[in-house]
Amino acid sequence: MKTLAEAFHHMLQDIYYAENALVKALPKVAGAAVSPEFKALVEAHLAETKQQVKILNEVFAVLKKKPVGVKCDAMDGLLKETDSIIADASGVALDASLIAAAQAVEHYEIARYGTLREWAKVLGMTEAHDLLSEILDMEKAANSKLTNLAVTAVNMTKMVA
Amino acid sequence: MKTLAEAFHHMLQDIYYAENALVKALPKVAGAAVSPEFKALVEAHLAETKQQVKILNEVFAVLKKKPVGVKCDAMDGLLKETDSIIADASGVALDASLIAAAQAVEHYEIARYGTLREWAKVLGMTEAHDLLSEILDMEKAANSKLTNLAVTAVNMTKMVA
Repeated sequence: MKTLAEAFHHMLQDIYYAENALVKALPKVAGAAVSPEFKALVEAHLAETKQQVKILNEVFAVLKKKPVGVKCDAMDGLLKETDSIIADASGVALDASLIAAAQAVEHYEIARYGTLREWAKVLGMTEAHDLLSEILDMEKAANSKLTNLAVTAVNMTKMVA
Repeated sequence: MKTLAEAFHHMLQDIYYAENALVKALPKVAGAAVSPEFKALVEAHLAETKQQVKILNEVFAVLKKKPVGVKCDAMDGLLKETDSIIADASGVALDASLIAAAQAVEHYEIARYGTLREWAKVLGMTEAHDLLSEILDMEKAANSKLTNLAVTAVNMTKMVA
């Protein structure tokens, strides 16, 4: 990996793996969520994540490359953390920790898409830049919704504590 | 893990492990960095990270708990990714990918400290809230510096590509 174009292709494969891993993991999170609002948000984000995989397929098409993922250790670590929460937490700690884990995932994706779209711009790939910006905006919106839900969730905790 | 107080203690241990892992990893990143600006930024952030570990010790003291870490799979994954970049990348791809990896680490920390300080507030721990906010501001500033550097780094790439 020597050029920015190679680094771009590698990071695209990394986030492709990550989004596909999320598609598999989110139904477990929705199943474990206690509050109906959080469950609905996770289900909506699962639909959005599937759409993002399709948009990433378009970015691969722009590059004239096959859409293939490469193991993303960061997303694997984030999802392992989510599994531990589902296994070890209950009551108010469960939703609060799962919302926090979902925010960490969103932050990871925001960092990746921020980099990818900047690199696409420098590489002169306007179409890829616009597709990646579209996903970035979706991730930012998802994170804002999680932040609002987190504040509500912990405030409810306060009432029942 | 049932209460918000237990979830808070667990996440504090998680980020304590993560910051200590960063203290060990950052010298490798500084050693691999090509641009002197990036190298200087990583070295400055290493000093800051050591300071953050001290601030976390104070938060443990507020809780009357011993400062002990618990394995943080997300940070382990992020640092494994950094190791792969150092092993596999060279030339312009090396700095660009390392800066991007550092931004992913900052985003993870921003997510964690955002959650921790919000939980501290709900739990009525004003001192812990203020200490965690102090670290959050440092991480946000570090991320902004990395974003500026990323833009400069890829624009230089454009000139040499």
